[in-house]
Amino acid sequence: MTAKAFQDYYPDQLSYCYGCGRLNENGLQIKSYWEGEEAVCTFLPRPHHIAIPGYVYGGLIASLIDCHSTGTASAAMYRAQNRDMDSDPPLRFLTAALHVDYLRPTPLGEPLEVRASVKEVKGRKVVIASTLSARGEICARGEVVAVQMPDHLAG
Amino acid sequence: MTAKAFQDYYPDQLSYCYGCGRLNENGLQIKSYWEGEEAVCTFLPRPHHIAIPGYVYGGLIASLIDCHSTGTASAAMYRAQNRDMDSDPPLRFLTAALHVDYLRPTPLGEPLEVRASVKEVKGRKVVIASTLSARGEICARGEVVAVQMPDHLAG
Repeated sequence: MTAKAFQDYYPDQLSYCYGCGRLNENGLQIKSYWEGEEAVCTFLPRPHHIAIPGYVYGGLIASLIDCHSTGTASAAMYRAQNRDMDSDPPLRFLTAALHVDYLRPTPLGEPLEVRASVKEVKGRKVVIASTLSARGEICARGEVVAVQMPDHLAG
Repeated sequence: MTAKAFQDYYPDQLSYCYGCGRLNENGLQIKSYWEGEEAVCTFLPRPHHIAIPGYVYGGLIASLIDCHSTGTASAAMYRAQNRDMDSDPPLRFLTAALHVDYLRPTPLGEPLEVRASVKEVKGRKVVIASTLSARGEICARGEVVAVQMPDHLAG
């Protein structure tokens, strides 16, 4: 990909999130991109992201869904406002609610693909539905209610 | 506390979970204990568990709720069966569904207390409700549907 990821547009002071901050050296540093109407993030878990032998820890799955969804919420709001992602003021989102259904154990050692779609944009709220897949098979489904950060925090 | 934590009873091969495995050196190694009818876990986030400056990353909150709830589900099933936690066969649980409502930003730098109660024990399923608090104030509410691991995995 030559495009910048959603997270590459976040202001520096909001780029330390453990899940998606490009400046958090200890973090996951996930990257999200549009693919048409869907947003996609690919992440390869580390060996220590284990749950039981051979499978990925559920908290990591929740974390990927959470940060990819708030990033997608932000990108969706820029789109809804016909704005470039590097225009001011920055639009950033917080998670109000997170739901994950774990459909089957997620194999460890494979790249995971989180694929998100925008269910609703209403006022300062965006609802994102997502799937998390390994080897092309859906292992978890997520839904995130994201709320736009107050301007004094987002700046 | 002098009592052993729920997680200290997990069989070695199931003690590598990133969230709660006592043998995962890179993990969170959470510890859960009964306090009467509730189960309590206290965890101090590291500085890199940041979301935005001053606040805890939501994925960590989801992870704490997840692992504390599956541990509590296990402990509740031992209680329901009138069994000691070190008796065989071991009872371990997987997360089928995780829901977190983020009520307010969770301050970083404070110990977090996750407090869980058992809503339902039915067959191999246990439903756990929980709160996550900082400085005595509830910052998030969780609900986890946990399902008992198949015996061939739990052994």
